[in-house]
Amino acid sequence: MVKSYLVPPNIDLKNLANEVGGFNEFGEKVSTNVILEKPITVFLNDLEIITSMTIGDYPELLALGFLFNQRIIKKKNEVRSVEFDSDLGVVVVRTYEDTNYEINSRKKIRTSGCAVGTVFEDLMDEVDQLKLKTTSLPVSLVYSLSKRINTTPSLYLETGAIHGTVLCDFKDPLVYMEDVGRHNAVDKVAGWMLDNKVVGSDKILYTTGRLTSEMVIKTAVMGIPFLLSRSGFTAWGVELAESVGLTMIGRLRGHRFICLTGADNIIFDEK
Amino acid sequence: MVKSYLVPPNIDLKNLANEVGGFNEFGEKVSTNVILEKPITVFLNDLEIITSMTIGDYPELLALGFLFNQRIIKKKNEVRSVEFDSDLGVVVVRTYEDTNYEINSRKKIRTSGCAVGTVFEDLMDEVDQLKLKTTSLPVSLVYSLSKRINTTPSLYLETGAIHGTVLCDFKDPLVYMEDVGRHNAVDKVAGWMLDNKVVGSDKILYTTGRLTSEMVIKTAVMGIPFLLSRSGFTAWGVELAESVGLTMIGRLRGHRFICLTGADNIIFDEK
Repeated sequence: MVKSYLVPPNIDLKNLANEVGGFNEFGEKVSTNVILEKPITVFLNDLEIITSMTIGDYPELLALGFLFNQRIIKKKNEVRSVEFDSDLGVVVVRTYEDTNYEINSRKKIRTSGCAVGTVFEDLMDEVDQLKLKTTSLPVSLVYSLSKRINTTPSLYLETGAIHGTVLCDFKDPLVYMEDVGRHNAVDKVAGWMLDNKVVGSDKILYTTGRLTSEMVIKTAVMGIPFLLSRSGFTAWGVELAESVGLTMIGRLRGHRFICLTGADNIIFDEK
Repeated sequence: MVKSYLVPPNIDLKNLANEVGGFNEFGEKVSTNVILEKPITVFLNDLEIITSMTIGDYPELLALGFLFNQRIIKKKNEVRSVEFDSDLGVVVVRTYEDTNYEINSRKKIRTSGCAVGTVFEDLMDEVDQLKLKTTSLPVSLVYSLSKRINTTPSLYLETGAIHGTVLCDFKDPLVYMEDVGRHNAVDKVAGWMLDNKVVGSDKILYTTGRLTSEMVIKTAVMGIPFLLSRSGFTAWGVELAESVGLTMIGRLRGHRFICLTGADNIIFDEK
């Protein structure tokens, strides 16, 4: 029996999209759904961290997942509260204790300005230490997951112009998040995992976006050993995936793909 | 006769891509070209402005176009020199006089930190004043330009995982830039226009990326009245395009498209 999603795509078009009138190629009137994007600003305690354009669903998970994927927050029990103010478009994440990020950024402000560079360096140091669990993935499962994902009703199918990220286990797609940027979609998945204390080592991540260095870093930080995409690779993404032991399958369309890292972990059972 | 590009796609695979070995869906060895991405940092005089991941071609045009599209630099004759140091991955743009951006950011650093928010507000104030020139575009030209662009040998065709932006006049595609992010591709076009003192009012811009608010702002700032894309729209993008008088055609594939703003400027000559 096919299991249904724990979190299916959010196709609440009334809140996430606008119906806009326009014209088709023959000059005939048509109307179409166009995705709404709005800025959301994430605060960590009293520190403003980032403003990001988002479709606006799951703002709390987006904030949590962003902070987790940046390694600013590492465990759920560090988090005291997460509050979203929809009028202001602000999410405030409060922790029990000051995070290293805040301590370092106060230091930085006293010296030379923004703390963003340092955070990235700290993140890369942590990624350098990472080694993902080795496990095996049959090609037949790759095909069945991607087919089920692609035929799931989604905002992508309704509006285009949006990226999806899907957390799967070794049987089913579980959590399907979408957003205007692929980073937000994966951050929302990370937020859901943190919030539900779900580990990544027995999971597979599917993304509609490209397999760039940033996607590889996020997937590795989430502890997920397999990353699938219908899109292509970048060289730095491949290099990082190699070093953390992430198996990457790209250009996945129908029964075709290319695997550039971790092919030893693939069971080629569909010849 | 079909005119050739002034600047064709840069398909210098030796410098822009790595050949990486991998496996196809049957577990057979294959090798594929994977795009290289590297960070480039833009300095304006002695001020560090932004670090961006890029494929690395035309770093000077990328820096110039970024500064132009942010309205930090407005005319070529403000620019004293543009120097690229490939070892450091740094472009330094020097101006004859201090820009408003530097003056304001010094003020800001003395008060509350980064100047990025203020720059965005100033940019939006300027976009609010913009009104693009009204002119007419026949559907037959839309189809012929998009066909020529899509059949041009490009990094996209070689590696996937990359966005393209093409500046066209009312006859031919002229300048075809590509990069890992769609913003860099359009900034390189803007840099080329600034460097060659080319105006946008009699041009058409084609992008492979989505028609978001940021793409609309850049196109409007470049003075280009038509924006075409094979991808979809976002609501804020449509709203901004409406307000500046930008005609947008999206979901352009073969002989199909949707026009959500400025349909009065389209001549439907292909019924």
